[in-house]
Amino acid sequence: MTELVYVLNGSNLNMLGKREPHLYGTTTLARVQQETEALASKLDLACEFRQTNSEATLVDWLQEAFERDAGVIINPAGFSFASVPVLDAVKLVQRPLIELHITNIHKRDETYRHSLVSRAATAVICGLGVDGYLVAMQAMAMALRKTSPFAS
Amino acid sequence: MTELVYVLNGSNLNMLGKREPHLYGTTTLARVQQETEALASKLDLACEFRQTNSEATLVDWLQEAFERDAGVIINPAGFSFASVPVLDAVKLVQRPLIELHITNIHKRDETYRHSLVSRAATAVICGLGVDGYLVAMQAMAMALRKTSPFAS
Amino acid sequence: MTELVYVLNGSNLNMLGKREPHLYGTTTLARVQQETEALASKLDLACEFRQTNSEATLVDWLQEAFERDAGVIINPAGFSFASVPVLDAVKLVQRPLIELHITNIHKRDETYRHSLVSRAATAVICGLGVDGYLVAMQAMAMALRKTSPFAS
Amino acid sequence: MTELVYVLNGSNLNMLGKREPHLYGTTTLARVQQETEALASKLDLACEFRQTNSEATLVDWLQEAFERDAGVIINPAGFSFASVPVLDAVKLVQRPLIELHITNIHKRDETYRHSLVSRAATAVICGLGVDGYLVAMQAMAMALRKTSPFAS
Amino acid sequence: MTELVYVLNGSNLNMLGKREPHLYGTTTLARVQQETEALASKLDLACEFRQTNSEATLVDWLQEAFERDAGVIINPAGFSFASVPVLDAVKLVQRPLIELHITNIHKRDETYRHSLVSRAATAVICGLGVDGYLVAMQAMAMALRKTSPFAS
Amino acid sequence: MTELVYVLNGSNLNMLGKREPHLYGTTTLARVQQETEALASKLDLACEFRQTNSEATLVDWLQEAFERDAGVIINPAGFSFASVPVLDAVKLVQRPLIELHITNIHKRDETYRHSLVSRAATAVICGLGVDGYLVAMQAMAMALRKTSPFAS
Amino acid sequence: MTELVYVLNGSNLNMLGKREPHLYGTTTLARVQQETEALASKLDLACEFRQTNSEATLVDWLQEAFERDAGVIINPAGFSFASVPVLDAVKLVQRPLIELHITNIHKRDETYRHSLVSRAATAVICGLGVDGYLVAMQAMAMALRKTSPFAS
Amino acid sequence: MTELVYVLNGSNLNMLGKREPHLYGTTTLARVQQETEALASKLDLACEFRQTNSEATLVDWLQEAFERDAGVIINPAGFSFASVPVLDAVKLVQRPLIELHITNIHKRDETYRHSLVSRAATAVICGLGVDGYLVAMQAMAMALRKTSPFAS
Amino acid sequence: MTELVYVLNGSNLNMLGKREPHLYGTTTLARVQQETEALASKLDLACEFRQTNSEATLVDWLQEAFERDAGVIINPAGFSFASVPVLDAVKLVQRPLIELHITNIHKRDETYRHSLVSRAATAVICGLGVDGYLVAMQAMAMALRKTSPFAS
Amino acid sequence: MTELVYVLNGSNLNMLGKREPHLYGTTTLARVQQETEALASKLDLACEFRQTNSEATLVDWLQEAFERDAGVIINPAGFSFASVPVLDAVKLVQRPLIELHITNIHKRDETYRHSLVSRAATAVICGLGVDGYLVAMQAMAMALRKTSPFAS
Amino acid sequence: MTELVYVLNGSNLNMLGKREPHLYGTTTLARVQQETEALASKLDLACEFRQTNSEATLVDWLQEAFERDAGVIINPAGFSFASVPVLDAVKLVQRPLIELHITNIHKRDETYRHSLVSRAATAVICGLGVDGYLVAMQAMAMALRKTSPFAS
Amino acid sequence: MTELVYVLNGSNLNMLGKREPHLYGTTTLARVQQETEALASKLDLACEFRQTNSEATLVDWLQEAFERDAGVIINPAGFSFASVPVLDAVKLVQRPLIELHITNIHKRDETYRHSLVSRAATAVICGLGVDGYLVAMQAMAMALRKTSPFAS
Repeated sequence: MTELVYVLNGSNLNMLGKREPHLYGTTTLARVQQETEALASKLDLACEFRQTNSEATLVDWLQEAFERDAGVIINPAGFSFASVPVLDAVKLVQRPLIELHITNIHKRDETYRHSLVSRAATAVICGLGVDGYLVAMQAMAMALRKTSPFAS
Repeated sequence: MTELVYVLNGSNLNMLGKREPHLYGTTTLARVQQETEALASKLDLACEFRQTNSEATLVDWLQEAFERDAGVIINPAGFSFASVPVLDAVKLVQRPLIELHITNIHKRDETYRHSLVSRAATAVICGLGVDGYLVAMQAMAMALRKTSPFAS
Repeated sequence: MTELVYVLNGSNLNMLGKREPHLYGTTTLARVQQETEALASKLDLACEFRQTNSEATLVDWLQEAFERDAGVIINPAGFSFASVPVLDAVKLVQRPLIELHITNIHKRDETYRHSLVSRAATAVICGLGVDGYLVAMQAMAMALRKTSPFAS
Repeated sequence: MTELVYVLNGSNLNMLGKREPHLYGTTTLARVQQETEALASKLDLACEFRQTNSEATLVDWLQEAFERDAGVIINPAGFSFASVPVLDAVKLVQRPLIELHITNIHKRDETYRHSLVSRAATAVICGLGVDGYLVAMQAMAMALRKTSPFAS
Repeated sequence: MTELVYVLNGSNLNMLGKREPHLYGTTTLARVQQETEALASKLDLACEFRQTNSEATLVDWLQEAFERDAGVIINPAGFSFASVPVLDAVKLVQRPLIELHITNIHKRDETYRHSLVSRAATAVICGLGVDGYLVAMQAMAMALRKTSPFAS
Repeated sequence: MTELVYVLNGSNLNMLGKREPHLYGTTTLARVQQETEALASKLDLACEFRQTNSEATLVDWLQEAFERDAGVIINPAGFSFASVPVLDAVKLVQRPLIELHITNIHKRDETYRHSLVSRAATAVICGLGVDGYLVAMQAMAMALRKTSPFAS
Repeated sequence: MTELVYVLNGSNLNMLGKREPHLYGTTTLARVQQETEALASKLDLACEFRQTNSEATLVDWLQEAFERDAGVIINPAGFSFASVPVLDAVKLVQRPLIELHITNIHKRDETYRHSLVSRAATAVICGLGVDGYLVAMQAMAMALRKTSPFAS
Repeated sequence: MTELVYVLNGSNLNMLGKREPHLYGTTTLARVQQETEALASKLDLACEFRQTNSEATLVDWLQEAFERDAGVIINPAGFSFASVPVLDAVKLVQRPLIELHITNIHKRDETYRHSLVSRAATAVICGLGVDGYLVAMQAMAMALRKTSPFAS
Repeated sequence: MTELVYVLNGSNLNMLGKREPHLYGTTTLARVQQETEALASKLDLACEFRQTNSEATLVDWLQEAFERDAGVIINPAGFSFASVPVLDAVKLVQRPLIELHITNIHKRDETYRHSLVSRAATAVICGLGVDGYLVAMQAMAMALRKTSPFAS
Repeated sequence: MTELVYVLNGSNLNMLGKREPHLYGTTTLARVQQETEALASKLDLACEFRQTNSEATLVDWLQEAFERDAGVIINPAGFSFASVPVLDAVKLVQRPLIELHITNIHKRDETYRHSLVSRAATAVICGLGVDGYLVAMQAMAMALRKTSPFAS
Repeated sequence: MTELVYVLNGSNLNMLGKREPHLYGTTTLARVQQETEALASKLDLACEFRQTNSEATLVDWLQEAFERDAGVIINPAGFSFASVPVLDAVKLVQRPLIELHITNIHKRDETYRHSLVSRAATAVICGLGVDGYLVAMQAMAMALRKTSPFAS
Repeated sequence: MTELVYVLNGSNLNMLGKREPHLYGTTTLARVQQETEALASKLDLACEFRQTNSEATLVDWLQEAFERDAGVIINPAGFSFASVPVLDAVKLVQRPLIELHITNIHKRDETYRHSLVSRAATAVICGLGVDGYLVAMQAMAMALRKTSPFAS
């Protein structure tokens, strides 16, 4: 059966490639979406790739993922640090939820160092640049299918 | 050329499988080593997989990795939180260094929540269980070889 | 004259009954609305019962309540803890405003323990489960009508 | 069967009506007792209404309520904030225990903002003035008899 | 050439004149807009004057200002203190960005004293009442045109 | 009637132009005085422009401004952060008092981020460079003469 | 008319002279009472001098002082630092209330440095040894009789 | 000569066996008293075993122990954490004073983790359950009689 | 022998009577000096009464008092809270040093609540208004002459 | 059956008798070992008494104790306060583990006051001097054999 | 060329030898000056040795050192801990600036433990007593002349 | 008699010259040893120069220095900040112990700013680069031989 994975992106990620390129690089989000969907397809996973600047929309999408029993890869961006509504919606999800950051947030200044979302995520990956999207998709495949060699 | 990767494990990980299994699972470190080396081999990477309970030995190995120009995957375990010698040795490394934790440390109690090592790591992966070793090796391959699709 | 009462519900409360049922119980928000409206009617109060995941919408409704000179019962949920826009809108209201939480938030973890909204509310009720909606409506009736036996 | 409810009042509440009337109003505790007992009677509840300035006596009464399997409405007043003996005795109680404050303590200065008792209470009501006693009794009736419409 | 200036207003400022008039005065936002646009016109500046209660909309407008290479005068109001999405969008802007508060926020209570946005703004003006809008526009003219007498 | 404005400068500002030029620019204080006096004259304001490295002298000047019923523009520099004598003298002043900083102090490190003086100032302007002196003088003219268009 | 002054002493002061004599000296409380009453008599003041180890009794006495419209000199001893009931009772008193400590509590360790009672006292005297009782009585005479030379 | 030992028990310990049995076990205080007195007798020590819910009474007993030159074993229970009167009385005692807790308080939540009394006790024993009473009595015998093998 | 007493006054006290009269009253410092000198004379004490806005001058005077073996009554005003030079000079003094504040500083806001000087003073008196100068002089007489009735 | 008990000593305890004798006394560790082994033998317990300055060796010994199903008495000394590897190894042990300190660490300065190990130990004994080793061995005998009189 | 070195001494150091001799010793500042100038002369350095109790004067001297391109050895004494004007002036200096304390300030109480000046100094020397002046002069010689053996 | 001086170096200093050269420079530790030994010889001091990455070894060496009655110059590097075993061993040393850091640690980030070792060292020198080793040896010579000119 083809499992479903939501790949959700928070505030200002639509500016990827233009925004603070010394931190986030020059690849656009469209390019990230293309590669991520290609990999998902190769791994036989259905993929919903979305971005929003609205906290309410992000909450709606997380509820939707819960209703459809999907796994979630989320880069909450600006919603990582102080949004309790997003945290609560993340807690709703029953399948694996992997939090993703392009930079190593622990190296950044205090404002960006402690993610609330990490307290409820299954796993966290940060600092791999946009490659993190692909690494997270591979990890999601193992988690959803229980195809880990350790599982046998 | 075959790149070299050190996979370094800190204190008490020799007890993996016996120690707090509700947190760390029942897979032994020997089993983790076997699968990690198998994957490295498949990815054409040389792999030094080691464990120690000694902070000084861990510092020596990190210096050795620096001398041999290797990438490093490190699960510092008990040395993550207050060891400045390990932090200083981590800063020495010039190639990608991925910090790995079996659990999502951000979900644990205060003592285990803030890794010093994260402030100097290239990337951090946590919460994927022992699968994290495999995911980290795949990420290392992309980082060392610059084979990321985004790189083209 | 029939007084007007807004009963406003914040983020993720549309999932009531499905979301963390060990904390919030299995009653749905539709059921809560039904009983709350029935009681309001019995107390001869007009009742606007609403829910939103959007901070901006919640701010709009609070401004609307202010314009219509209504009392407010508000369960701000995820907006309780860090939303200054909601706090500012709460301050706008001139009639009694009762803050309501289904759980006793003081028993929960640090993230959920200190409500910003409490600093501007008239009164706070928490920990009575969904019965809290009915208790709050009774308290609102006394406050709006000044029918307290102590008033005489 | 008639259920028993203790209504316990802590330090300085014997001065109600004289003490900081801009905060606590001018109604005396005798008047509060009269209305509270009248309502309890109407709700077919037995009511023990008491006040003390002694922490030890308050602990004794809570132990007594535990022995007699009573519900408790408690306004701990000055014992709310730093009395571990009262907190421990509150934990002893097995039936619903509602903490009550006349003012909204969250609006007051730091010394009065964080109740220890709230960490062990079933529910908390504050800011309704002396009407809070009546509202708490109504909530207690629902909780003890399980007469909540949501219970069906 | 006529330079473009966005004048952006955050949550609850649509209630200006009605909301906490002892703090914010009785002038309405429409009146502020009228005077601000008149002054902009006199200074030969194009002016986009807007208000929103939605964090997402404010982020969109800041991205738009960035795309159109405009200067920004922003009164983030309730979004000043804990909104990382707004902070991130502010960082995107390349032209002068002046943060404006009607009151001297440093005189207010703790919740309103530390603006996150200030960490990324070019300049901050507060405490001048609604006159601050005119003062900020004059400062913006100097900054955009480099007409400061010190520049020579 | 010609109103009087004190423009007071604190410690190390006599080194302006030489001191940390990447922060404060290369304009000297003499040049700033010249332009500020020119603008004051154009606005028909009398202007006392002074600088001192002595906390006691600054206190004396603030008392003098109070005695002469003058408005005050003050750049307290090093006296902003821990000088209670300056804070107390600032409180003495009855006319508008505008605190001025050349840099955006909120962007600087912890030692320079919280001005004590701001707690007593009428208004605060920072981050406009030496242009801030001119902007502050314009704001002072409006405040002293009540010539704001909003005043009508 | 003879004014009434309560001189109230808290926990362990019955051991004065025996308890930590390097801190509190060797004079007994009986001796202090004798001299204090003699001075009160000379100043034509009635004096109630009492000691208790019970917080509740101290609260009762403060309420009694309030009822009898007396001035209060209080050495709360161990009740100074964390007793909200005593703080609340102190707030009840309408006449001058002088807090007294034998030692300079600000020189002692953290546990003894911050008196809650000081936040509500009219005045505080500490560090004069047992002479402080006499000094406080003289101050009380001036305050009750308004015989201060500055009053004329 | 038969030495005297006070074994003093603080608030809510009269409920031992009924109160939070998962923490404190099911043995009653009467049973503890019986075994403790038996052991004291065997060790040729006189034993005063008491319990109180009153802080004042506990202070009185400590003063009494001081007057009678007795050793003290004290389980202060709820008075451990914030009672300065008890701390001051403990400091009065000249003979060995052993603080005892049934549970390992360092494993409990923040409210119960830091005993004030420990700052003045000779020794502290915790976490041995009710056996701790017997272990403390054996330690007291060694301390009072100086029968330690290390003493020779 | 006539003992010498320095009465030293810190920053802004020359404005006494004009400065924040709701806090400090309307009596001038000249008037305070007159009454203080009169009382000193009656007590057969020599009195040096001085005021300065300069921290350095205050340090010089304290050193002078040390050289002349004088007692000191000091109202450090703005120098109380953060001046280590004044603290160090206070420590130099070998005779009794009484710190004096007109208001009860413990009732004021955080900035004015913790005096550094108190950590080295012999005694502290605050909250008695300008009467405090007279009370402090009486206390100084007892301390210097050892005429306390308790001394016999 | 003879049970096995590890008595493990951490850093610098090999210097016992020479090191800070005002704190730790003059008895050597060899003497402590002798008496401890004698008592263990009398109680029919096998005893492994060891000391190390190496954190890694201490971790190894704790793992060894776990493998051999032994009880543990541990004086972690310098490893008590910040060593997460030791804490993790302590958690591994399944039999009773008693933490021992020669001094009452709660009386010492901040650095030595909060033991991490206490959060995982079964029981803690401190302040009995070197007698603590004997008291701990007696407590261990009761715990391992379940010979407590309360057990019947 | 003979390099110039300022040796600047802050508040109360004119009392050296008399002030807290258990901390600072009995050598006078005149004696320190004599030996320091002798050593400077031997090292062929010009030396300006000064002391002041005035923060403003210290700022002036630091500006003077900057104008004359001198190295600076500074014992800021009471100005070390909270004087931002001194900190700012220190930052002005372009040549090596060595901060000197007679005692090891890190061993003293909290008020004296964290020097602001250290954040801008080139180097810090403390705890060598008055010998520190000579050691600092030797270090300054190496730094100014670049005569370090490591420089070759 | 030739005095003995241990020069002990902590973790990662074997990498000096390669490790973070922008901070630590390019001189190797071998070179530092050579110059330090040459200077010691010239000053007629015996010198033990060592480096280790092991905390236990560093503790052993400090104990050895204590046994041989040697002075100690120690650069604890990574062991400065959280190693209580090293702190305890440092306290053991009876002769002068000078702590040395190559950089000015007070200028670095929080992790590197507060040395535990400083609380027990005789003196501290930091920020002089590798020249600090030579300066420390000169200071040690004065301290050991009491050849200070001030000693006469």
